[in-house]
Amino acid sequence: MTSPVGLHRVLAPRGVLPQAADRLDSRPEIGPDEVRVRVERLNLDAASFRQLATKHAGDGESVRAEVLAIIEARGKMHNPVTGSGGMLIGTVDEVGPESSLGLKPGDRVATLVSLTLTPLKITDGLRSWDGLSEQVPCDGHAILFGRSIAAVLPDDLPAELALAVFDVCGAPALTDRVVRRYGHPTVAVIGGAGKSGCLSLAAARRAGARTVGVVPTTAERDLLSKAGLANAVALADARDPVALSRAVTEALGGPADVTVVCVDVPGCEHGAILSTADGGTVIFFSMATSFPAAALGAEGLAADVTMLIGNGYAPGHADFALDLLRGVPAVRDLFAARLAAD
Amino acid sequence: MTSPVGLHRVLAPRGVLPQAADRLDSRPEIGPDEVRVRVERLNLDAASFRQLATKHAGDGESVRAEVLAIIEARGKMHNPVTGSGGMLIGTVDEVGPESSLGLKPGDRVATLVSLTLTPLKITDGLRSWDGLSEQVPCDGHAILFGRSIAAVLPDDLPAELALAVFDVCGAPALTDRVVRRYGHPTVAVIGGAGKSGCLSLAAARRAGARTVGVVPTTAERDLLSKAGLANAVALADARDPVALSRAVTEALGGPADVTVVCVDVPGCEHGAILSTADGGTVIFFSMATSFPAAALGAEGLAADVTMLIGNGYAPGHADFALDLLRGVPAVRDLFAARLAAD
Repeated sequence: MTSPVGLHRVLAPRGVLPQAADRLDSRPEIGPDEVRVRVERLNLDAASFRQLATKHAGDGESVRAEVLAIIEARGKMHNPVTGSGGMLIGTVDEVGPESSLGLKPGDRVATLVSLTLTPLKITDGLRSWDGLSEQVPCDGHAILFGRSIAAVLPDDLPAELALAVFDVCGAPALTDRVVRRYGHPTVAVIGGAGKSGCLSLAAARRAGARTVGVVPTTAERDLLSKAGLANAVALADARDPVALSRAVTEALGGPADVTVVCVDVPGCEHGAILSTADGGTVIFFSMATSFPAAALGAEGLAADVTMLIGNGYAPGHADFALDLLRGVPAVRDLFAARLAAD
Repeated sequence: MTSPVGLHRVLAPRGVLPQAADRLDSRPEIGPDEVRVRVERLNLDAASFRQLATKHAGDGESVRAEVLAIIEARGKMHNPVTGSGGMLIGTVDEVGPESSLGLKPGDRVATLVSLTLTPLKITDGLRSWDGLSEQVPCDGHAILFGRSIAAVLPDDLPAELALAVFDVCGAPALTDRVVRRYGHPTVAVIGGAGKSGCLSLAAARRAGARTVGVVPTTAERDLLSKAGLANAVALADARDPVALSRAVTEALGGPADVTVVCVDVPGCEHGAILSTADGGTVIFFSMATSFPAAALGAEGLAADVTMLIGNGYAPGHADFALDLLRGVPAVRDLFAARLAAD
């Protein structure tokens, strides 16, 4: 019998869930509740790609070789350093008779669960990828479990755009939920010009918040100001707690009720905490977040803030994010610009 | 003007938070929101003392000289090798007119923030200390900022017991807050027989929850069952998601509304998520928690759960925990047993 969370695909160590596994079984034969997808593209997690690119000093050949080696060794694209993965796009190949995902052969889908738990086999040696971008064209197959999440790609948007939205769609959904709990709070989005950042800004405003987007460069400041997505745009290095909290406080007239961390660089915990009002909430979406730095930082600063680990899943999160993109042209423009730059 | 987080006491490098500073200004004159404490004892962090003792081959004279030199050079007891500090005990000497810490001269207090960010000046050359133990009797003064945390040592409890409670007092405070938000939820405390665990169980029950304490050994199961702190006690390895969720589900008749993770071993994220009902909350207090494992785990399991980073601070947390200890004899017994075993 197959497990809805994929326990039967875990090779080592035994008894752990697929995400915690060192190695998964990526054989193409599916169980009764599984789905096999023919993969056409991987979208690597930003933190993972950055770590690999930095490690190999931007040498695409070496990055490609390491990604291939990871997938071969682990049966999944699970960066052992960052602990993160990404997602994929492909076409449904075969659907087990007991699958409840609502998919049929020929559907073009994106997986909304991480590559860190998705059995994956690459068959083309990643030869179409130059190793210089997070977007990895490829051939191979992936397996979806009984409880996986996959979304059929919408007809009205380019697949690449939809994929980029799905990759971060947990962020606007959770931002919306938290903002509505506060009524009409002030919200600071750290990394507001990025993908999860601009969607979070749009979600916060739609939910009734007054917002500031914080960015690290004048180029991003100009971009975000022109987009008009935030009530204010501020320039600060998120790793500098004093500079960050000053920027937020000046822009909002006080610390933020809700701070959303969307920058994938380490060391932003203390600044985010210091930027948040007592009784406020910090939502950490960055995979570079350090749990001890956040926990001990809040204690050291005597900060009575609620700190949330950004859950990549919420019911309806994919449709929610697509609706934001469709309804807010500036978000679509920022995504298009990001994709063009990649 | 003084900064509530002590920025005005940072001498070098300029603009960083006190914990990140090389040197603090430890002069005794206090700002309007500061408090000066006359120090009677430092309690060095275990890792820091071990490093110093090893470096000097157990020569107490040399250890003493180096601790004195560090405090003299840095204006704080911040071991530059281990990066750690410790805490201190002393008596409040002077309270600034704008201090909001609720202290008055003569109060005997323990600091609940690290020595790595506390301005400190030693005036007796540490002459009463032999350099052979983490407990450093001394004379001198320390400065608390507007937003520091210090707890008055209770008259009715041994100082050692109070300090052990203070060390984990954030856990019961946050558990109480979350449980009250749910009404009368079911609560699973993973590691229920430990210090933060038994306090969290007591807090959950007092707030109206039906509880299960999960422990890893039959000895702890018998201990916790006898203590009567939880409605049920279950035996499971928290690193085994399948076993843990089965134990919780069987004990409570379904997954928990709130799961509190109090075990300091890595790899408990997925089990905690899998043990929690949709719409529920997981509170992670373990410093061994992996941020990516939690974030990606919830996504991979399509789990609509709120995940909290356990904040070591909440207003009134020290008094709240002491009250629990006083009011629930079984908690006091468990603490006494833990201290005796140390």
